[in-house]
Amino acid sequence: MKSKKPLIGIIMGSDSDLPIMGEAAKILDEFDIDYELTVVSAHRTPQKLFEYGKTARDRGLEVIIAGAGGAAHLPGMIASITELPVIGVPVKTSKLSGLDSLLSIVQMPGGVPVATVAINGAKNAGILGAEILGVKNGKIRDKVKEYKDNLQREVENKAEKLEDLGYKEYLERMTK
Amino acid sequence: MKSKKPLIGIIMGSDSDLPIMGEAAKILDEFDIDYELTVVSAHRTPQKLFEYGKTARDRGLEVIIAGAGGAAHLPGMIASITELPVIGVPVKTSKLSGLDSLLSIVQMPGGVPVATVAINGAKNAGILGAEILGVKNGKIRDKVKEYKDNLQREVENKAEKLEDLGYKEYLERMTK
Amino acid sequence: MKSKKPLIGIIMGSDSDLPIMGEAAKILDEFDIDYELTVVSAHRTPQKLFEYGKTARDRGLEVIIAGAGGAAHLPGMIASITELPVIGVPVKTSKLSGLDSLLSIVQMPGGVPVATVAINGAKNAGILGAEILGVKNGKIRDKVKEYKDNLQREVENKAEKLEDLGYKEYLERMTK
Amino acid sequence: MKSKKPLIGIIMGSDSDLPIMGEAAKILDEFDIDYELTVVSAHRTPQKLFEYGKTARDRGLEVIIAGAGGAAHLPGMIASITELPVIGVPVKTSKLSGLDSLLSIVQMPGGVPVATVAINGAKNAGILGAEILGVKNGKIRDKVKEYKDNLQREVENKAEKLEDLGYKEYLERMTK
Amino acid sequence: MKSKKPLIGIIMGSDSDLPIMGEAAKILDEFDIDYELTVVSAHRTPQKLFEYGKTARDRGLEVIIAGAGGAAHLPGMIASITELPVIGVPVKTSKLSGLDSLLSIVQMPGGVPVATVAINGAKNAGILGAEILGVKNGKIRDKVKEYKDNLQREVENKAEKLEDLGYKEYLERMTK
Amino acid sequence: MKSKKPLIGIIMGSDSDLPIMGEAAKILDEFDIDYELTVVSAHRTPQKLFEYGKTARDRGLEVIIAGAGGAAHLPGMIASITELPVIGVPVKTSKLSGLDSLLSIVQMPGGVPVATVAINGAKNAGILGAEILGVKNGKIRDKVKEYKDNLQREVENKAEKLEDLGYKEYLERMTK
Amino acid sequence: MKSKKPLIGIIMGSDSDLPIMGEAAKILDEFDIDYELTVVSAHRTPQKLFEYGKTARDRGLEVIIAGAGGAAHLPGMIASITELPVIGVPVKTSKLSGLDSLLSIVQMPGGVPVATVAINGAKNAGILGAEILGVKNGKIRDKVKEYKDNLQREVENKAEKLEDLGYKEYLERMTK
Amino acid sequence: MKSKKPLIGIIMGSDSDLPIMGEAAKILDEFDIDYELTVVSAHRTPQKLFEYGKTARDRGLEVIIAGAGGAAHLPGMIASITELPVIGVPVKTSKLSGLDSLLSIVQMPGGVPVATVAINGAKNAGILGAEILGVKNGKIRDKVKEYKDNLQREVENKAEKLEDLGYKEYLERMTK
Repeated sequence: MKSKKPLIGIIMGSDSDLPIMGEAAKILDEFDIDYELTVVSAHRTPQKLFEYGKTARDRGLEVIIAGAGGAAHLPGMIASITELPVIGVPVKTSKLSGLDSLLSIVQMPGGVPVATVAINGAKNAGILGAEILGVKNGKIRDKVKEYKDNLQREVENKAEKLEDLGYKEYLERMTK
Repeated sequence: MKSKKPLIGIIMGSDSDLPIMGEAAKILDEFDIDYELTVVSAHRTPQKLFEYGKTARDRGLEVIIAGAGGAAHLPGMIASITELPVIGVPVKTSKLSGLDSLLSIVQMPGGVPVATVAINGAKNAGILGAEILGVKNGKIRDKVKEYKDNLQREVENKAEKLEDLGYKEYLERMTK
Repeated sequence: MKSKKPLIGIIMGSDSDLPIMGEAAKILDEFDIDYELTVVSAHRTPQKLFEYGKTARDRGLEVIIAGAGGAAHLPGMIASITELPVIGVPVKTSKLSGLDSLLSIVQMPGGVPVATVAINGAKNAGILGAEILGVKNGKIRDKVKEYKDNLQREVENKAEKLEDLGYKEYLERMTK
Repeated sequence: MKSKKPLIGIIMGSDSDLPIMGEAAKILDEFDIDYELTVVSAHRTPQKLFEYGKTARDRGLEVIIAGAGGAAHLPGMIASITELPVIGVPVKTSKLSGLDSLLSIVQMPGGVPVATVAINGAKNAGILGAEILGVKNGKIRDKVKEYKDNLQREVENKAEKLEDLGYKEYLERMTK
Repeated sequence: MKSKKPLIGIIMGSDSDLPIMGEAAKILDEFDIDYELTVVSAHRTPQKLFEYGKTARDRGLEVIIAGAGGAAHLPGMIASITELPVIGVPVKTSKLSGLDSLLSIVQMPGGVPVATVAINGAKNAGILGAEILGVKNGKIRDKVKEYKDNLQREVENKAEKLEDLGYKEYLERMTK
Repeated sequence: MKSKKPLIGIIMGSDSDLPIMGEAAKILDEFDIDYELTVVSAHRTPQKLFEYGKTARDRGLEVIIAGAGGAAHLPGMIASITELPVIGVPVKTSKLSGLDSLLSIVQMPGGVPVATVAINGAKNAGILGAEILGVKNGKIRDKVKEYKDNLQREVENKAEKLEDLGYKEYLERMTK
Repeated sequence: MKSKKPLIGIIMGSDSDLPIMGEAAKILDEFDIDYELTVVSAHRTPQKLFEYGKTARDRGLEVIIAGAGGAAHLPGMIASITELPVIGVPVKTSKLSGLDSLLSIVQMPGGVPVATVAINGAKNAGILGAEILGVKNGKIRDKVKEYKDNLQREVENKAEKLEDLGYKEYLERMTK
Repeated sequence: MKSKKPLIGIIMGSDSDLPIMGEAAKILDEFDIDYELTVVSAHRTPQKLFEYGKTARDRGLEVIIAGAGGAAHLPGMIASITELPVIGVPVKTSKLSGLDSLLSIVQMPGGVPVATVAINGAKNAGILGAEILGVKNGKIRDKVKEYKDNLQREVENKAEKLEDLGYKEYLERMTK
């Protein structure tokens, strides 16, 4: 839930990252966790990046989720400015499939970690954010547990259905 | 500090990972954070892995740091069993330099994030663990801040010394 | 043939892998080999994975074929729980083309092999399963031989046709 | 055990692969499984390769383990000639670290599978060979189970020792 | 020109490679060089591969062009059987973009070279074949020279046209 | 602006690179910088390449921007002939996504640098060209500054709009 | 020459990069170009990075050379703050050989170019810096020309010596 | 044999490539084929490169073998200037293991093939050169055949010895 008192800040290098990064927001909505979401470009608005990082803790943020693609510096730079945990989302690129984004985000030097998730893994960034808030907030932790239990049930239901129908019938229904 | 009431569990797939994973313990010692450290192999002791994950929250752990190399399944599997945040450390391998470890850990499917750090980035895993505990514990957060401030000072001191000595003299002293 | 007394278990991490993994089932149908097929997710249903592996031998399975994509832990984890031969199918991913799946499956540590086939090579997983059953069952081994002989004839027929028609005519007919 | 009535054939492209491929022989010795071991080069002795493959089944072999490096054609070519299961071992190369060997072995076309293990994974090739023989021979299967149980115990012992000593003391003893 | 007395043999692992490999034939047609073209699969028709290689020299072939994809063994295997120069064409694959094909073909061991061209570079394989025949046949060599001179003129004409029209106008005409 | 007295020469290996390389021209048009643009192929018109490089300085060029794909030799070869700064643009290829182009351009030996930009980064090549001219021409430098300031404003405007609308509404408008 | 009125600023992320980055200084010494050299860490001294970039132009710098390894953000971040041309040097890393450094530096988004040189290519960064200054300063341009002419002579001398001695004798002298 | 009337020209980008490229010369010595060998740098002596290529045919060369590392332009550039067949040897680099060299050499555009061999495959370049000369010269072709037959015998001898001694004894003797 976007709100006046956000616990998580979601930032991205460009509004073209929104279709991916929106998934982080969506999962936080599901968990009823307050967040803010905006565009901060390490390369085009470096001053804003700096201010965002410097004020994050005092504004009450507990976790920052940052997504970027290519030479993706946003997560690492924000991590260099704040003592909050920073989650990095490597956004897939049209040229090198996000391998460039991944290496630019995950290979941080000693002293400045970025908690990196999979390429385009914004949903997981949201879940990880919730897990981190769960350190302080047992209700959120229970929600994460419930979420994972639901995933399990969904898979079990699909498995059951697949076993019932057989793979040919199941495949046919999938492709309809 | 290894203790009776650990907040962070450090596990690794093999004792051969200890020279790397020990760096996570060392930094937690610096931060005076209680942790436990042991070997849990996803492939050789799968039952222990399950029990470790299942009991982690109730035993009071808040964060799990898991390191492994090659087809590195430990971080992802432990993340599948617990709702605690899991930090994954891809350990460098002699064959593919840890690219296999990195991809095996970071490319998790939707629903089960692993907070991945750099190849051999165990120190950063420890710092990230501290940042996560900082969500609940302001003192730890202040220590992280202090740690980053110290890094800054160290770099500034080196810069100053380098500017004073000139690069040739500095290089000579480095190689002595 | 899916049956009450399956010799081969085909499992996959998600029903989205079915269009690929169904090819393993299809080839086993061709060989008249009994199999079972279902969804078992290493990350979403870890307990089921564990039980599946623990009971596989006693339920009469001789071979397990496991397919998964990305940080693909299913084949390696099932191999860690059973003494049956496990065949791993790296499923192609939209981001890293299955290189992540391949490395996550093939680079297993000493003691826990996974018999890995090509990216999306589910058909070959089925054939390999038949070859393994052929160790005990001469009829299945003969069927594999017959299958490979047929492949040879098909190629020879195409070669003959190509030599007859010439490449231009052959190409034209291909694209019609 | 090398013997007159081998069940497994171990072949390699060059005697320079022996330090790696010897590990397959060693583990088969541990399992008391009869094998033969020789050099067959796809590129230097193609005729011998053909004969080896053509006669393998009649000579009583049940499984073939083939290791090679670089443009590693031996496993795939032997698989094209026999209906026995073929296990491929990509040998690490000094130039591309065995990525070339791995892709040359694993990416086989439909119809001709090679059961590929990790780069330099000859030990696992031996274990996989034993698992495959286990389809017919319950004793070998039990030995594999016992072997995996021993691995588990070894890891548990190390874990216990590590927990007792603490990581610093353990590390010190490792490096002595 | 396909003929009774071919100088170049074009072979490919599957008729699905024909849209690529046909370009080698087309350029040889342009050079009026006699060739034969067929399908020979290293994995599905290994015996045919062997006979093809063994008889090539006696049948009057001077050069063999072999194309294959994935674990591409055809060029290397044919090179192991004949003392004729063998040109390898790595065919692009849908999974690893032909990197697997390239490494499988180019990384040959000492003693058995394959003259590898670019991924999908069948046209260049044809030109290289002509250049090799040019060692014996001055007319073919002159044709290659003429071909390269024509390429030069084409580029110069395009350059002139581009300079005349300006890039905007030129781009517009391109996309019509 | 294309003109009689160009300061920057834009060259590309093939007119098929024009849709990418035209972006360099476009940005120079925006900066009112005189340039010339043509096709020079390292491989098809080597003599022209040589003359282009030899005469560049005397014709008044200050910077050369060269784009090419695959085994991309144009930027490095032109850099070997002139003492002007050369900017290289790796053009994306259909096979290896431009990784081949990138490595062919950037990995130059000591003594002959090429200022390499991102894969398909022709716009940035133009901006870099302007920055280099800015060393001599304060007006151009101010234009670059203004350009970067505008980028910043654009991002800020988007950020503001995104914060106003919320991500769902913003996404909806994006996809319309 | 390090001086009071530097034209080029050489910065690096860590003093451990000095053995590489010192080569840039050395070549500028050879060209008698004034430079300054210091450590500025994007991640450990972000504030200093901002100030360095903001004041660079006013302090008289014309070019900035920035080297860093791993998730190498220094060159791109400094380029986001200044309108001076920025040359990036990807420093080789012990894990991924500098591929991570290279992609982190070269794959910059539109609007913010970094002139990237080869992995560990600090010498070439210095030469490129000189070529850029050459736009304004004909003497420096002539020195670059002279430098390249000397390279040519050196190679010619070596070639002559090699042709004289023959390769065996030359090799023997090399290895002494 | 180096001589007055060479049939093959061996060139390399730097004398540091000699330990590798000398293997091409050595094998030609074995085949009694006349060659010349020198250093020609695409980047440092471009004029010499042009002249070398332009005069090659008239000086009686039939084949050119060119080796280079990194952004390896020598083989492709020489191929652009001559209608002789050009064999390219990618020399291993300390940074990217020769993957950069390989892609820079093999990924040539349509019209200008380079016959690429393995990374550091200079010996194979020599053999390929002999195979090409064999098109005109039956004696050389017979020598190539004899060479390959010898390889076969060597492998057979090693195989026999290995079968006699057993792998343990053989390994012991290898490591002495």
